[in-house]
Amino acid sequence: MSHAQQMIASHTAAPPFGRDARSRCIEACFECAQVCSLCADACLSEPQVEQLTRCIRLNLDCADVCEATGRILSRLSEGSPALIRAQLQACVDACRACAAECEHHGQHMGMRHCQICATACRECEAACSAVLQAA
Amino acid sequence: MSHAQQMIASHTAAPPFGRDARSRCIEACFECAQVCSLCADACLSEPQVEQLTRCIRLNLDCADVCEATGRILSRLSEGSPALIRAQLQACVDACRACAAECEHHGQHMGMRHCQICATACRECEAACSAVLQAA
Amino acid sequence: MSHAQQMIASHTAAPPFGRDARSRCIEACFECAQVCSLCADACLSEPQVEQLTRCIRLNLDCADVCEATGRILSRLSEGSPALIRAQLQACVDACRACAAECEHHGQHMGMRHCQICATACRECEAACSAVLQAA
Amino acid sequence: MSHAQQMIASHTAAPPFGRDARSRCIEACFECAQVCSLCADACLSEPQVEQLTRCIRLNLDCADVCEATGRILSRLSEGSPALIRAQLQACVDACRACAAECEHHGQHMGMRHCQICATACRECEAACSAVLQAA
Repeated sequence: MSHAQQMIASHTAAPPFGRDARSRCIEACFECAQVCSLCADACLSEPQVEQLTRCIRLNLDCADVCEATGRILSRLSEGSPALIRAQLQACVDACRACAAECEHHGQHMGMRHCQICATACRECEAACSAVLQAA
Repeated sequence: MSHAQQMIASHTAAPPFGRDARSRCIEACFECAQVCSLCADACLSEPQVEQLTRCIRLNLDCADVCEATGRILSRLSEGSPALIRAQLQACVDACRACAAECEHHGQHMGMRHCQICATACRECEAACSAVLQAA
Repeated sequence: MSHAQQMIASHTAAPPFGRDARSRCIEACFECAQVCSLCADACLSEPQVEQLTRCIRLNLDCADVCEATGRILSRLSEGSPALIRAQLQACVDACRACAAECEHHGQHMGMRHCQICATACRECEAACSAVLQAA
Repeated sequence: MSHAQQMIASHTAAPPFGRDARSRCIEACFECAQVCSLCADACLSEPQVEQLTRCIRLNLDCADVCEATGRILSRLSEGSPALIRAQLQACVDACRACAAECEHHGQHMGMRHCQICATACRECEAACSAVLQAA
């Protein structure tokens, strides 16, 4: 177990949604934020950077949304259910937009970093959708 | 004009929504993020902190959501309209929840920092709603 | 007075450094973070984006450092003086590196957004230095 | 390997410091940021919250510093070595201050979340020191 998982397991406040799905979602959000930041930088290092500006922009958007979502979900007690649902929906939309763009560059330009990023985005999209459906 | 307003006025990419409403919304998001961070710290300094834990939590949530929203709106070009709308909706919900909590403490506990914070949250809520309606 | 300035003026905890210099520094950090995010996006929209990748990178670094510095300074009570000084020094270095890069593009490529960004970075560098010297 | 580790391994830009130490440091920064956010929330849920306000404050500071440091280190190309060193030093100071506070509450108040958080902070402090010494 990571330190974060141990921390969530030991938290006394009962979260409003299922603890396991929420714990997986928090991890997925922070990993996706990190991978999207890395993908933005890898795109900036490519000789074809002028074809990747929309990808960089969506990477940065997705990193910001995932980080905010991960932080909000990490506050396990006393939150606003309406806010949590709306932020999860925004995260689903951010991951979907970024994944679609990265999948395109992974397939048509052979960019390995975009392929890895698309996978992380799809996993985060699924993890957020799972928490949303359980809500 | 602030540096940020000069920057938005000089940006060549036409944003998908009205530039003035968007510019005001970006300013409101960053100011609300800053005020919510300050309110969380002011609440932590109160002798009655144990009655303010939900307020601190919503302050921190609202600061994170406003900051992500401000950053995404600052990327004026090539964004995902679905993501922008969903993030604006999350920001409306975050500001509404934080304002309601802060208004309560402002009125019933006489907390000046909560009153100022509630005002900033309501202004940000209105600025986000205006951009959403124009979209 | 902005909401943030009202908030700082009403905070009961005495900050370890001079309140006015600190209040100006917090404002400068958050404005610089916002301007650097906008400059990164404006650079991404330029036809010569491949000549601006180092500028985009330093914009993003500076935005992240300024935001963390602004948040830490906003916590007026009970901080770690060693951490505050080290973070202020990192912010001085971030602003200096970003300003130098932006000044170059402002002068040699005529980029208005880089000129505005360089001004905001130099102001934030000065505001952080003033708080550091008073510490 | 996590997605983030795969991403770093596939990045074409040679980082200025050793890649493995840097990769471990990025992971440690993001994990520490996440754990500190969780510890702040767990402290807010404690009945003795009024004895934990300095801990919450340092948790929030450490989360902000670690996140900024992780983001800056994730930009593997073209950074400012002076900025990277100063930010790593700030992160060492943030982790040290937060760990000392959390160790105290772990030992004297038996708080499990503070013990886990102290471990994550000490690991992040060591990972940042290792990159600093190699620089």
